[in-house]
Amino acid sequence: MIIILEPGATAEQRDALAADLKARGYGVHLSEGVERTIVGVIGTPERDKNELKEQFESLPFVERVVPILKPYKLVGKQFKPEGTVIQVRDVRIGGGNLCIMAGPCTVESPEMLFETADRVKAAGAHVLRGGAFKPSTSPYSFHGMGEAALKLLAEARDRTGLPIITEVMDTRDVELVGKYTDIYQIGTRNMTNFSLLREVGTARKPVMLKRGWASTIEEWLQAAEYIASQGNYEIILCERGIRTFETYTRNTFDINAIPSIKELSHLPIFADPSHATGKRSLVKAVSLGAVASGADGLILETHPNPEKAVKDGPQSLSFDQFDDLIRAVAPIAAAVGKSL
Amino acid sequence: MIIILEPGATAEQRDALAADLKARGYGVHLSEGVERTIVGVIGTPERDKNELKEQFESLPFVERVVPILKPYKLVGKQFKPEGTVIQVRDVRIGGGNLCIMAGPCTVESPEMLFETADRVKAAGAHVLRGGAFKPSTSPYSFHGMGEAALKLLAEARDRTGLPIITEVMDTRDVELVGKYTDIYQIGTRNMTNFSLLREVGTARKPVMLKRGWASTIEEWLQAAEYIASQGNYEIILCERGIRTFETYTRNTFDINAIPSIKELSHLPIFADPSHATGKRSLVKAVSLGAVASGADGLILETHPNPEKAVKDGPQSLSFDQFDDLIRAVAPIAAAVGKSL
Amino acid sequence: MIIILEPGATAEQRDALAADLKARGYGVHLSEGVERTIVGVIGTPERDKNELKEQFESLPFVERVVPILKPYKLVGKQFKPEGTVIQVRDVRIGGGNLCIMAGPCTVESPEMLFETADRVKAAGAHVLRGGAFKPSTSPYSFHGMGEAALKLLAEARDRTGLPIITEVMDTRDVELVGKYTDIYQIGTRNMTNFSLLREVGTARKPVMLKRGWASTIEEWLQAAEYIASQGNYEIILCERGIRTFETYTRNTFDINAIPSIKELSHLPIFADPSHATGKRSLVKAVSLGAVASGADGLILETHPNPEKAVKDGPQSLSFDQFDDLIRAVAPIAAAVGKSL
Amino acid sequence: MIIILEPGATAEQRDALAADLKARGYGVHLSEGVERTIVGVIGTPERDKNELKEQFESLPFVERVVPILKPYKLVGKQFKPEGTVIQVRDVRIGGGNLCIMAGPCTVESPEMLFETADRVKAAGAHVLRGGAFKPSTSPYSFHGMGEAALKLLAEARDRTGLPIITEVMDTRDVELVGKYTDIYQIGTRNMTNFSLLREVGTARKPVMLKRGWASTIEEWLQAAEYIASQGNYEIILCERGIRTFETYTRNTFDINAIPSIKELSHLPIFADPSHATGKRSLVKAVSLGAVASGADGLILETHPNPEKAVKDGPQSLSFDQFDDLIRAVAPIAAAVGKSL
Repeated sequence: MIIILEPGATAEQRDALAADLKARGYGVHLSEGVERTIVGVIGTPERDKNELKEQFESLPFVERVVPILKPYKLVGKQFKPEGTVIQVRDVRIGGGNLCIMAGPCTVESPEMLFETADRVKAAGAHVLRGGAFKPSTSPYSFHGMGEAALKLLAEARDRTGLPIITEVMDTRDVELVGKYTDIYQIGTRNMTNFSLLREVGTARKPVMLKRGWASTIEEWLQAAEYIASQGNYEIILCERGIRTFETYTRNTFDINAIPSIKELSHLPIFADPSHATGKRSLVKAVSLGAVASGADGLILETHPNPEKAVKDGPQSLSFDQFDDLIRAVAPIAAAVGKSL
Repeated sequence: MIIILEPGATAEQRDALAADLKARGYGVHLSEGVERTIVGVIGTPERDKNELKEQFESLPFVERVVPILKPYKLVGKQFKPEGTVIQVRDVRIGGGNLCIMAGPCTVESPEMLFETADRVKAAGAHVLRGGAFKPSTSPYSFHGMGEAALKLLAEARDRTGLPIITEVMDTRDVELVGKYTDIYQIGTRNMTNFSLLREVGTARKPVMLKRGWASTIEEWLQAAEYIASQGNYEIILCERGIRTFETYTRNTFDINAIPSIKELSHLPIFADPSHATGKRSLVKAVSLGAVASGADGLILETHPNPEKAVKDGPQSLSFDQFDDLIRAVAPIAAAVGKSL
Repeated sequence: MIIILEPGATAEQRDALAADLKARGYGVHLSEGVERTIVGVIGTPERDKNELKEQFESLPFVERVVPILKPYKLVGKQFKPEGTVIQVRDVRIGGGNLCIMAGPCTVESPEMLFETADRVKAAGAHVLRGGAFKPSTSPYSFHGMGEAALKLLAEARDRTGLPIITEVMDTRDVELVGKYTDIYQIGTRNMTNFSLLREVGTARKPVMLKRGWASTIEEWLQAAEYIASQGNYEIILCERGIRTFETYTRNTFDINAIPSIKELSHLPIFADPSHATGKRSLVKAVSLGAVASGADGLILETHPNPEKAVKDGPQSLSFDQFDDLIRAVAPIAAAVGKSL
Repeated sequence: MIIILEPGATAEQRDALAADLKARGYGVHLSEGVERTIVGVIGTPERDKNELKEQFESLPFVERVVPILKPYKLVGKQFKPEGTVIQVRDVRIGGGNLCIMAGPCTVESPEMLFETADRVKAAGAHVLRGGAFKPSTSPYSFHGMGEAALKLLAEARDRTGLPIITEVMDTRDVELVGKYTDIYQIGTRNMTNFSLLREVGTARKPVMLKRGWASTIEEWLQAAEYIASQGNYEIILCERGIRTFETYTRNTFDINAIPSIKELSHLPIFADPSHATGKRSLVKAVSLGAVASGADGLILETHPNPEKAVKDGPQSLSFDQFDDLIRAVAPIAAAVGKSL
């Protein structure tokens, strides 16, 4: 941690700060520049860093405090340089495997779910997605079938052998959802719901953590650290687009995040081109881009009849479009050395 | 709702759409332009609108769908043109009153809380704020004293007569927090935690709903609609800054939102210049700006020793700074016809 | 154009508006909904649209005006559905060719330029880039060698046969730069310098138009329309990252823009992963992603010694890194049916 | 300047860097932390800083470089702590005076200009604004009357005594515009047109520099530094709203920027609530907010018949609305100690 003093800071202020730091047990390096004094603080423990940074910035003679270390440990690259591989039933996530998750935004009926499960499996998907509890911007929209949908998802798994992933939105539902799902999904709206992060951190099932639509990569990794700090290291990150000024697309897919996560963390990183674009016509191109840039997997919305979907129809692929996408992804995966 | 067809849409597609709409019981207006056909849909009920919009946009011959009505009702201006006034013990919020809420970011000890309560009351504050459950970006930061802090807040209320406001972050804590607080606070990170919104919607206490840092005004009002749709109309909106590319300040205070909310909604609108700036040196100027532009109140962080604060020290005011701010606000409030 | 009236608009206001529209020679469709009246305006000519939209929105009884047509014509997909192909000396841009432009941010000396030209040519680049006039955020930074650099670029072209591209920043320099360059580059900071756009629109050389870092796709296409409206149709669009809240990367590469441009326009679309990331370590992954998602070309910064570069060293590739990138791009290009 | 080395940097790399720095004549402070080595560089001259930062960041064993000093000098607070006051004919800008500039977006005819000039003068405006050269997103929109408008503005000045301000967009027009105007305006789209900044920097007339809609406060001050570095210190900054994800308003007025500029710079800071909101109904509230937060002036669009305006009608005030705004601003100005 480096503390940069204001131009007018006095020698007394500087010395008092140094004495205070030493009294707390930290090493201190003073560096007098031409216009500024800089104080290096050595040995600050992880758990005190945020608090210390804010306290020093509160001093009237301090201009700013520059942290040196990254604010996460367990999910950082150095913690596990070889990369995390997660086994979910027969599916391996990470480690050179390209994993495709597909299914409807929302479970609407047994028929549409089973038809979708059969078709995406046939096309080559590895995991079945489907919403039981759905976040909706409007209180008057459909909010999902709840446990009935969870049961149908489990039935679809039995039918197809595909592991399932579904969203959990409420700390009170973590146990219930865990009775059925293979992977918990934390949606973008709950990336900063820290109670929920901690709750799935105590569960013993993998968690897909979608990036908050206005969260930096660093904040996203800190959210993952919440889960890891409770003992659950099986975390899949998922870039699903961030909020910008652009209005032609629903979100802006931050493809930079894919190699950035690869250099900062050992966790697998997925892409969600359906939400990242909000437009069916763009999903294929962005899926190919995500895989070429190093994504470990894709999560895609598909629907037997997108124009009848209860939610997210405009971004859902028909089965034929999904087949076409998978065919196009295969040579890209091969080109970057991933097995599909 | 208006449906704009693609340039290449055929007469058959147009007629099939019109027939479908009529079969669902809606009125239909066709308008043939030089390059586009436009279909006006009349009489779509509130609860179907999002679903219908997405379904029509999923049709391959539809370019886009333009909603005509606002996606909220109960919190809209037309629902209560005279404006909502909320009574909290002896304090009236809204209706020409300027309400000042102040106190520490986090309750750290009885001494610091009681000292703060006494001082902000003496300076003219109407409500005491203080955190018991604290959201933190890092899992290793302090997360609040929990129920012990709630008890101290209640004790501070007994001492000073100031009603209290404190944040609730978990659906499981709504009942516990409600035993002590006068006003629930929903923080920016939980504006899209819809389970929590619904839970406080069933409580019978006022709720301050902070704007999500990347939520539009329309989404914010829809979040308020969640609370109102459960029967709780006592909602205070609070603009606390949005996330932009600017890094000199912690957030960008969206002052446009104050008169925008005034023309769209009947709910009181507050400003939180502490979080909106993240810098003590800017809090006073932004507070004055917010009041001049029509805010019904301010919520401010104050601390006996900001440089010792466990959280948010850099944006917390000392007591002298708080006194100075209140003195400066008074003539602004008078100039815009508000009683302090 | 559709005009949505305020809920309280009277029949007299509606009729006066309709009469005004008819008097101007437009067709009018009235549609009375349950809560709103909607006025469809038919036959508004291209050149009046912005003016009319603003005038109607200025009427006190109008809530908003929804344009139906896109605000550009000449650069729109429908104007030339088969796509634009631009021939620059022996190089074809667009039409299934993947074009690589590479070279230093700034021309620093004959030696470094010629060495770079030789090496990028050997690696497979098609066009040599290099800055003669450089925009810099600080007035105290290096601003380029000016005409001396243009002469060196021309000499490098003679040596290698590679056509050259260089930036023009000032209307007064368009003629001078045109004496040397094969392709004009308009940088992100000048995308809304409309005088400059018009000036290169009257030149008879291709123009690469970089996206403004805070411009929407629609505004970008309108900027291209400025150039086209002066008679110059040889325009290459280049996505170079937009400004968002993320700070880990220099910009956020908007990969969604690539397929979006493909569906909206007939112009070739390039990617600039150097500026889009600002980090050498991310350039390769983002380049692969851009090509997989359909980009017609890449423009990349390379330098013999990035750590000695006058500008943009952190995002410049060494020659070995450039070789490696080209090798990795080849199978991706093949997978999407592009010839390198 | 502080250089933070990568965790794996070797002692040899560190020593070579230190030797290089010393050879260049800088002082060096080494600080070995538990996980990182930090190198303080002392005495780097202003003109080398950007270049040095990028070069050091290009070294493979350097994690990042933290600049210590601000990247501007002449426009910085310390350069002139008492604040700049600009005299334009009889009007004083800055120094406790609240200055109102008003007039039409675009000069459309002598009648509308003279009527506006008379009315805004009567209401208390100090400077007349009006566009002669207009930037427009679409090439098909009106681009201003050019020199004819400049002549009318000069005539309006003769009539009313109000100094005039008008925009210049092209380096080639700086001389022509300077023959008529009292103050140059640089619009948001040209804040990064560095050729233009330099050109007005050599003129001997005040310049109003609007903030780029996606420029940080620091970049804005560097743009001002361009002008100052050419010898023209009479610069007025103007916050006109930044681009964010919010769509209800045209831009987001960054009120934080007003006190931020006050603490970073000695230049006067104005607000443009017309463009910052894009909505006439919000202009008054935001104007009051801007003045309360410390703005030195306002620039406002007014029009005899906003619904007939060629441009910007929706955000233009009628004369009655302008009168009302001025009346409301007066007590706010008084409350913050400004003379109107």
